[in-house]
Amino acid sequence: MKKEIITFSRIPKIVSYYSVVGNKEHSGPLGACFDEWCEDDKFGKDSWEKAESEMQRRALAGVIRKANLEDKDLDVILAGDLLNQCVGSTYGLADFNVPYLGLYGACSTCAEGILLSSCLYGGGIVDVCGAVTSSHYCSSERQFRFPLEYGGQRTPTAQWTTTGSGAFIIGSEGKTSVKEALVGRIVNKGVSDINNMGAAMAPAVIDTLTRYFNESQHSPKDFDLIVTGDLGYEGSEIIKDLLLGNGIDIRKNHVDCGLMVFNRDTQDVHAGGSGCGCSAVVMAGSIVPNLEAGILKNVLFIGTGALMSPMTLSQGESIPAVAHLVHLSSDLGG
Amino acid sequence: MKKEIITFSRIPKIVSYYSVVGNKEHSGPLGACFDEWCEDDKFGKDSWEKAESEMQRRALAGVIRKANLEDKDLDVILAGDLLNQCVGSTYGLADFNVPYLGLYGACSTCAEGILLSSCLYGGGIVDVCGAVTSSHYCSSERQFRFPLEYGGQRTPTAQWTTTGSGAFIIGSEGKTSVKEALVGRIVNKGVSDINNMGAAMAPAVIDTLTRYFNESQHSPKDFDLIVTGDLGYEGSEIIKDLLLGNGIDIRKNHVDCGLMVFNRDTQDVHAGGSGCGCSAVVMAGSIVPNLEAGILKNVLFIGTGALMSPMTLSQGESIPAVAHLVHLSSDLGG
Repeated sequence: MKKEIITFSRIPKIVSYYSVVGNKEHSGPLGACFDEWCEDDKFGKDSWEKAESEMQRRALAGVIRKANLEDKDLDVILAGDLLNQCVGSTYGLADFNVPYLGLYGACSTCAEGILLSSCLYGGGIVDVCGAVTSSHYCSSERQFRFPLEYGGQRTPTAQWTTTGSGAFIIGSEGKTSVKEALVGRIVNKGVSDINNMGAAMAPAVIDTLTRYFNESQHSPKDFDLIVTGDLGYEGSEIIKDLLLGNGIDIRKNHVDCGLMVFNRDTQDVHAGGSGCGCSAVVMAGSIVPNLEAGILKNVLFIGTGALMSPMTLSQGESIPAVAHLVHLSSDLGG
Repeated sequence: MKKEIITFSRIPKIVSYYSVVGNKEHSGPLGACFDEWCEDDKFGKDSWEKAESEMQRRALAGVIRKANLEDKDLDVILAGDLLNQCVGSTYGLADFNVPYLGLYGACSTCAEGILLSSCLYGGGIVDVCGAVTSSHYCSSERQFRFPLEYGGQRTPTAQWTTTGSGAFIIGSEGKTSVKEALVGRIVNKGVSDINNMGAAMAPAVIDTLTRYFNESQHSPKDFDLIVTGDLGYEGSEIIKDLLLGNGIDIRKNHVDCGLMVFNRDTQDVHAGGSGCGCSAVVMAGSIVPNLEAGILKNVLFIGTGALMSPMTLSQGESIPAVAHLVHLSSDLGG
């Protein structure tokens, strides 16, 4: 069988990580974990889109500062976001004067960035690589659904786009290593409900985890956490059920970034959080710090993205999705 | 000085290349060079967006067939396009069941895809990598400017989005090698005229070529061609003038994909072609075949992208741009 899991002879480490969030995220269960937050979600700017770029700027500046590096030490930045033409990234990161490669993976962009950064470092192409992503509730709502002023009612399966940006630096020094990676395939099982992204993305997660466990020496119990980002409540229930049917039991150690970032009982987010920024801030604010502290030893992170646009849905298409996997470990060896 | 040019100990080769174009492109100066074309630009579909996806599907199928490979031989595909959420790629490539990484680099996406594919192969991460991109005049016009039915008048500096898709496979066997690569930086010099992209992108090309020639052992005269894609007439004149001021004379060997794909005298395209598909089909239809045939020995390909969105322009921002460079050679050695 063809080898699909990527491993590295030169092991990539997470050098630094940084998270910037909005008010609602700061009021959530992980509120105290984030590096920066802003009370009015505007970050001092006069539009939601500019606020999103400002979050990315602060996240990259923060992750560089935290690593005691300077801008010029970065060989390349990989970045992307949900906005049309990825302008959250291109305007947010323009001032850094660092070589830039744009990504589009919808909500899987954080995992895609860590994965590709690890490949570029692990393959000896670069020595220090940044990965940044963001989303903003207000810029997303008006682009994908309705203007906020419209006051549209949300369905029970709808998710709430996270206002936040997370940044990572991948390089040679750090307490968390990227041990393995698996690139997701596009999976489209016919779900076309834009208010049920969890169900649309679940099949991609099942595909990726099934491919991973078919080839890997590991079983689900070898991981402290199997973290998806972001299926929300609906999608999380689906993958646990269906993977069990494939003989893969992740019921004990599965968590979802969309269910971690908000409190569904008190924060009126329906099925949970979503958006490129969701997994980015949960990974940078909670998961990676817990790996660094040795509280977590091995984590599978599966970033999930829904790859449709409002245009394709209006043309009657269903929602394709992708799920990229990285295996993070506090074991620094090969 | 920090090394910025990427070189490879494991030299990536262009295994295969394939181009699919619309009617106007087929009627242009390179018409006979393209692998496939469609008379009505619909490619058998009922929307321009679906037609664009169909071009990508045909381009990837074609490049795989031409290489005598099967879908499953590809370790990963890198792809992107101009449409919101890159749906040209995600819907076009969903059926291939190949691991997928989405890119966004606007019209630089072809260069970004070849560059990243070369890094993944050169770093020993994958053995066979696909890079695909596309653009469609009709889907672009209605997304970025006006619905075609409106019949808006174009300004003299406006470019004409190319209807086309180009695909490449990077791997171990081929007559053209990727010798060097340089990732572009985001450059924004304040141009905000959406009808003069050439002027907006020119500063990014100047930045990239200046960085390249500052570090490289090569001078412009070592290259048969220095190919930009796509500055059009306006941007091409700007870079030749300004680079000369930096002591870099590319007047004798500079060509631009936007000026090659159409005949400006007879095809009413104003400043020339543009769009992700423009450099992709010119590279796949003309430049790489001429490298394979030994007619060209060394080519610098600089893919240029304008990284704004209609939203950022309406909010008063100017246009950031990026330019990625790859050095292609018919010399197969290290």
